Amino acid sequence: MLNFDFYNPTHIIFGKDRLDEIDKNTPAGAKVLITYGGGSAKKSGLIDKVKTALGKRKIFEFGGIEPNPRYETLMKAVEVVKNENIDFLLAVGGGSAIDGTKFISLASFYKGDASDLLKFGLSTIPPEVTGKAVPIGTVLTLPATGSEMNCGAVISYGHGKFSVLCALTFPRYSILDPTLTFTLPEIQVANGIIDAFVHTTEQYLTFPVDGRVQDRIAEGILQTLIEIGKTTVSEPQNYGARANHVWCATLALNGIVGAGVPQDWATHMIGHELTAMFGIDHGQTLAIILPALLEVRRDKKRAKLLQYAERVWHIDSGSEEAKIDLAIRKTREFFESLGVKTRLSQHGVGAEKIPALVEQLKAHGMTALSETGDLTPDISQKILETAM
Amino acid sequence: MLNFDFYNPTHIIFGKDRLDEIDKNTPAGAKVLITYGGGSAKKSGLIDKVKTALGKRKIFEFGGIEPNPRYETLMKAVEVVKNENIDFLLAVGGGSAIDGTKFISLASFYKGDASDLLKFGLSTIPPEVTGKAVPIGTVLTLPATGSEMNCGAVISYGHGKFSVLCALTFPRYSILDPTLTFTLPEIQVANGIIDAFVHTTEQYLTFPVDGRVQDRIAEGILQTLIEIGKTTVSEPQNYGARANHVWCATLALNGIVGAGVPQDWATHMIGHELTAMFGIDHGQTLAIILPALLEVRRDKKRAKLLQYAERVWHIDSGSEEAKIDLAIRKTREFFESLGVKTRLSQHGVGAEKIPALVEQLKAHGMTALSETGDLTPDISQKILETAM
Repeated sequence: MLNFDFYNPTHIIFGKDRLDEIDKNTPAGAKVLITYGGGSAKKSGLIDKVKTALGKRKIFEFGGIEPNPRYETLMKAVEVVKNENIDFLLAVGGGSAIDGTKFISLASFYKGDASDLLKFGLSTIPPEVTGKAVPIGTVLTLPATGSEMNCGAVISYGHGKFSVLCALTFPRYSILDPTLTFTLPEIQVANGIIDAFVHTTEQYLTFPVDGRVQDRIAEGILQTLIEIGKTTVSEPQNYGARANHVWCATLALNGIVGAGVPQDWATHMIGHELTAMFGIDHGQTLAIILPALLEVRRDKKRAKLLQYAERVWHIDSGSEEAKIDLAIRKTREFFESLGVKTRLSQHGVGAEKIPALVEQLKAHGMTALSETGDLTPDISQKILETAM
Repeated sequence: MLNFDFYNPTHIIFGKDRLDEIDKNTPAGAKVLITYGGGSAKKSGLIDKVKTALGKRKIFEFGGIEPNPRYETLMKAVEVVKNENIDFLLAVGGGSAIDGTKFISLASFYKGDASDLLKFGLSTIPPEVTGKAVPIGTVLTLPATGSEMNCGAVISYGHGKFSVLCALTFPRYSILDPTLTFTLPEIQVANGIIDAFVHTTEQYLTFPVDGRVQDRIAEGILQTLIEIGKTTVSEPQNYGARANHVWCATLALNGIVGAGVPQDWATHMIGHELTAMFGIDHGQTLAIILPALLEVRRDKKRAKLLQYAERVWHIDSGSEEAKIDLAIRKTREFFESLGVKTRLSQHGVGAEKIPALVEQLKAHGMTALSETGDLTPDISQKILETAM
């Protein structure tokens, strides 16, 4: 097991009818900016319920945070925070609204050009860079990214997607009411399952370091997602399935799975370029890249792929190659069973686009990816070719 | 899945050579009281290393916190805190030192008779009861109770053991260096495995509520403990085995396993009376009570016992009764494989003592135990008889 630090102070408030907890957990007298996305939270009446829960606090609203939240949009919210002396941010939405709100929280206290905050990559931004951050609460409406219980965000700027990690941006609390996700479109539910699945594999399908309990937890999340995936897509009001989906998505990226084990993240980094260049949903980019990456990296990941085949997919006969082949095929079939495409070509992206994608990876410094740091642009190219 | 709250702000600092982190994570200029137990931490030189890590801070020491820490002992430390204006407590030891330090932390700010703090049972003490608590850090030397990452303590007073739970007492940080546990006596390592195992079963062997991922996590901890149990007892310097032991023990009682599922705790409550009356080690009381309790409660716990048999012990043939019988037998054999006795009679306790034990349970209000609240003193008696 590798040395690790684990710290996660977010208070999770999980279950049916928990919006009343907003009042108890938001500082009395706070000036609150409610942040949200495209308007479904508004139309559904959720924003009104949140306002009611906030009681007599002074409330401002900032809607329109887009999927893959953009720097320029978020900087408009920063103006509101500064002009109105906002002292609490309440994000209502999915990963994009929450990620965007984390950036607003930090940028509101940064003295220089806030785009500097996009330059730390996967390194944590030291707290002294901004000194403070506006405290955040969240009401989750889309189980997928895990942003509700971590300190990370992904922000779009120019033609790239940039990670922003800072311990100051852990939400103070997150309300996880599975019933608030019942009205999501099927494809967003499917994307959410895939996002949670791939967050887990990024921290599990690497190389063994005798992190036995971490492996078991990862396998537990994967098995649960496989068990409930199709049900939660096709029966959106099935509370049990959705509750397991929500909690798996949170656990997949709250630090528990990755504590003390190697981490890959190449599927995410290559996927980000597909979103940036072709606008393919984040979850769907992962469904395209993961099977191809496992195929190309099967030797590097051999021991864990065999463990994955045996423990997650219960494949216990055949040669090593056959087991790995079958595990990758079952992974792809699982994604497809959720109604998600797993080939670049199915999205109308031809092989002629691959060189440009590889150039973008280089432009963003993604030249030494993976748990072993040796996934070069050449290998990314092979992965993209395999994903056609 | 049941509604739940999850909140755990303890910063875990895990791995080899992490004592330097004490300096970074303890407030500069704090007056620190180092608390510890019977002296092994002193003799081994660990206390000196901790002092070195604390640098120029003013340091006081309070040793002699006994196993099953006693109220009277802890109140002496409260005097030191008050007289010396201590503003940070650093517990060096196992669950007893850490539990005791949590009580010192709260009692130092309580205005009335501190024994009032023992009267809350398994209810959380509201923060306003003491208003504040002295912040705590820990250096763990015994992987067992999970106290290093939760806000609970068990304190001995008179002839009873009392739970003290308060969110103010989460350690700010806990250093978990598996090598600091290499010199433990075999029996304490074995007790630690059993403690972690039974913490997990108390939150898992109840009744199903479709908490699928919680079940998988519980099963992952149990499987890991079974895999590494004998090795970590017989090869104390095997880092991998001990690291998994340490992290399992922490995860077993940091709230993750029990979030959103029913909880039992009857094995602990009955076990506490064995410790109070006969001085049997806490871990060993659990090894005596758990198999007997599962036997007596097999109908109440049927569905989860079958799941336990299949997933944890890989028992996939036979009648339901045969599967449950075998799972209980394997549980007992696992405990015995660690060198731990699983029968009251092996500890020289005869059946004639059972009525007095049942009276003590009644005296301590333990008359409606278990996940269903219907484990009456009559049933406790049957469990104790089965444990002979």
